[in-house]
Amino acid sequence: MVPTDKRLFTPGPLTTSRTVKEAMLRDLGSRDEEFISLVRDIRRQLLELGGVSKEQGYEAVPMQGSGTFGVESVLSSAVPPDGRLLITVNGAYGERLVQIAKRLGLANDALRTAENIPADPEAVRRRLLETPDVTHVAVVHCETTTGILNPVEAIGRIVREAGKVFIVDAMSSFGAVPLNVAEAGIDFLVSSANKCIQGVPGFSFVLARRDRLAACAGNARTLSLDLYEQWKGLEANGQFRFTPPTHAILAFAQALRELEEEGGVAGRADRYQANHRTLVAGMQQLGFRPFLDPATQSSVITAFHYPGDPRFQFDEFYSRLSRRGMVIYPGKLGSVDCFRIGTIGQLHPADIRQLLEGAAAVLEEMSVTVPVAAPKAGSHS
Amino acid sequence: MVPTDKRLFTPGPLTTSRTVKEAMLRDLGSRDEEFISLVRDIRRQLLELGGVSKEQGYEAVPMQGSGTFGVESVLSSAVPPDGRLLITVNGAYGERLVQIAKRLGLANDALRTAENIPADPEAVRRRLLETPDVTHVAVVHCETTTGILNPVEAIGRIVREAGKVFIVDAMSSFGAVPLNVAEAGIDFLVSSANKCIQGVPGFSFVLARRDRLAACAGNARTLSLDLYEQWKGLEANGQFRFTPPTHAILAFAQALRELEEEGGVAGRADRYQANHRTLVAGMQQLGFRPFLDPATQSSVITAFHYPGDPRFQFDEFYSRLSRRGMVIYPGKLGSVDCFRIGTIGQLHPADIRQLLEGAAAVLEEMSVTVPVAAPKAGSHS
Repeated sequence: MVPTDKRLFTPGPLTTSRTVKEAMLRDLGSRDEEFISLVRDIRRQLLELGGVSKEQGYEAVPMQGSGTFGVESVLSSAVPPDGRLLITVNGAYGERLVQIAKRLGLANDALRTAENIPADPEAVRRRLLETPDVTHVAVVHCETTTGILNPVEAIGRIVREAGKVFIVDAMSSFGAVPLNVAEAGIDFLVSSANKCIQGVPGFSFVLARRDRLAACAGNARTLSLDLYEQWKGLEANGQFRFTPPTHAILAFAQALRELEEEGGVAGRADRYQANHRTLVAGMQQLGFRPFLDPATQSSVITAFHYPGDPRFQFDEFYSRLSRRGMVIYPGKLGSVDCFRIGTIGQLHPADIRQLLEGAAAVLEEMSVTVPVAAPKAGSHS
Repeated sequence: MVPTDKRLFTPGPLTTSRTVKEAMLRDLGSRDEEFISLVRDIRRQLLELGGVSKEQGYEAVPMQGSGTFGVESVLSSAVPPDGRLLITVNGAYGERLVQIAKRLGLANDALRTAENIPADPEAVRRRLLETPDVTHVAVVHCETTTGILNPVEAIGRIVREAGKVFIVDAMSSFGAVPLNVAEAGIDFLVSSANKCIQGVPGFSFVLARRDRLAACAGNARTLSLDLYEQWKGLEANGQFRFTPPTHAILAFAQALRELEEEGGVAGRADRYQANHRTLVAGMQQLGFRPFLDPATQSSVITAFHYPGDPRFQFDEFYSRLSRRGMVIYPGKLGSVDCFRIGTIGQLHPADIRQLLEGAAAVLEEMSVTVPVAAPKAGSHS
């Protein structure tokens, strides 16, 4: 009765395990003790994944909606009307932070680097000296536009020394890239249910230093995205203020169990790295060039240049792979023609090898010639 | 492996059918053709349920998050900064509209009636004459606080004659209380996936007159809750701007099929009315008094007075019923002690009879005496 789905080589929604989906075959009341206890456990486990705890002064707060809803709940709750936000930008998700700040009417400055260049901690330091009225700094950890990793630990040290509040969008890294929230000096970290923890979409979550969270009282521009009130509500009676996505939360609890069974963040990172290595080696063999220098590349998602051959049409490449049951992802770069392949979710190197076989067959169908001697990875065309 | 869940006699999340939940045993990419076509079908079917169509100038726009997120997306997108919102209030959800308006900094007036008195169309007419700078009027259709039905058709005629924009929170009525959006003069109607359509929680949706929706451009206070941009995004390529709750949407598509199989809104209304009649007759036999006059009562949820016996403790009554596998709902009234029982979701009169048997047994366990000759329904203690 249930069809076999395409495998999703995307940054999410992802291919999840059968058992994660089966956890949704229930209807729990949102005020039911079992559900309340599930939410409590999830909040504790999320802190553990970030290397922190309630005892150390941290809180985990889930927020209904997609990852962007979570990010906007942080920016609109943490930055007061007279605050000023410095944002490092090297891709579409950094730009989205800018877009949110503008929409909220927040004073903001963008510190841009090229899409293949990580955010520069020293540039952040200089900017904080030049613009002392900056109150908050926001950085995307893994910029899903390219898969580039930004040095949040190094930036965090500088932000903390300067006495500013540090916000990290860890949407596509949390759970698969080891990160200690306290050591990195992170005050607010945002991620989503359907990324590296391999749940289904429906909510995001925020890890926050409790004193910073308490300072959010009264700031939020909307009732729905009020992170402070969401936290207070959960603390008061364990319930969400507004109807939670009960089924997505059931799936997430199971996803957290499976993350633990895989060896936690380290175990999951190992598998994603194996996926990524398999992918890059195979794609290079087919003649494709990765967009990023390997030194800056995460194992979450990889951008590849279009091959030079004009017979390569991405939409056709995508559709032919999709008909073979494999879904890849379009590019999101400003000026360079790239497509992307995600290596997160319930995928293993064997899945990646099948994708590579499919890609080889599709290229042949399309009579596309990809240069055999691939130029050095990371170079720009 | 899957435990038998408690039956939820609540206003949502609800008991859903097994087949609705099984529809979630899939992972669809949010840019996949199949998913895009699913969303397109859902949007068309939602308009049909409201008795309107794209051809007639209406649009359906899903919004991530709970029902409150949908309501706030409408208020924050439809009412411009210099607008003024008149809100009828006779329960907690009317108060929530006021709370949202205040948070958004909107000029607003509340037209309050007691919790057992429906909103008064003539009072709306008078208020619009007295306060001509009101631009928008918002009414809760079925106030879940008590289950009272407000006369949205009559108010709609007055609002339309006055040339104002009419917003209806139809959270717990849409799909089970027949309503023609055009005839009722509704410009924006908000409801949720996990109410009478019997999906799972994860998103809400808005039916809107297209010209009113187009006039929302640039108004929204946040990026996430921008109803206009959400609509534009869906129209541009069929995709959500930000990750949709793909599994909740798969469940919703199945729920819509099952609603149609049941005979649409009329068929579902029949079952809910049968549930409600069974409930009220049985509860009265046990000695409980409904809070509302039957003439104002919907079949969605019913509030009952606490019995006079001090041995009746709601928490204990609730817990004992819960241990028997039946979950009821606490009251939400300002001053009167009531509890609530929902009759929506995948429940039939047989389920209601089991609940009544359970309630009788629990009252006996608690040695609670409920007056046998129940006072007239609707009277206040």
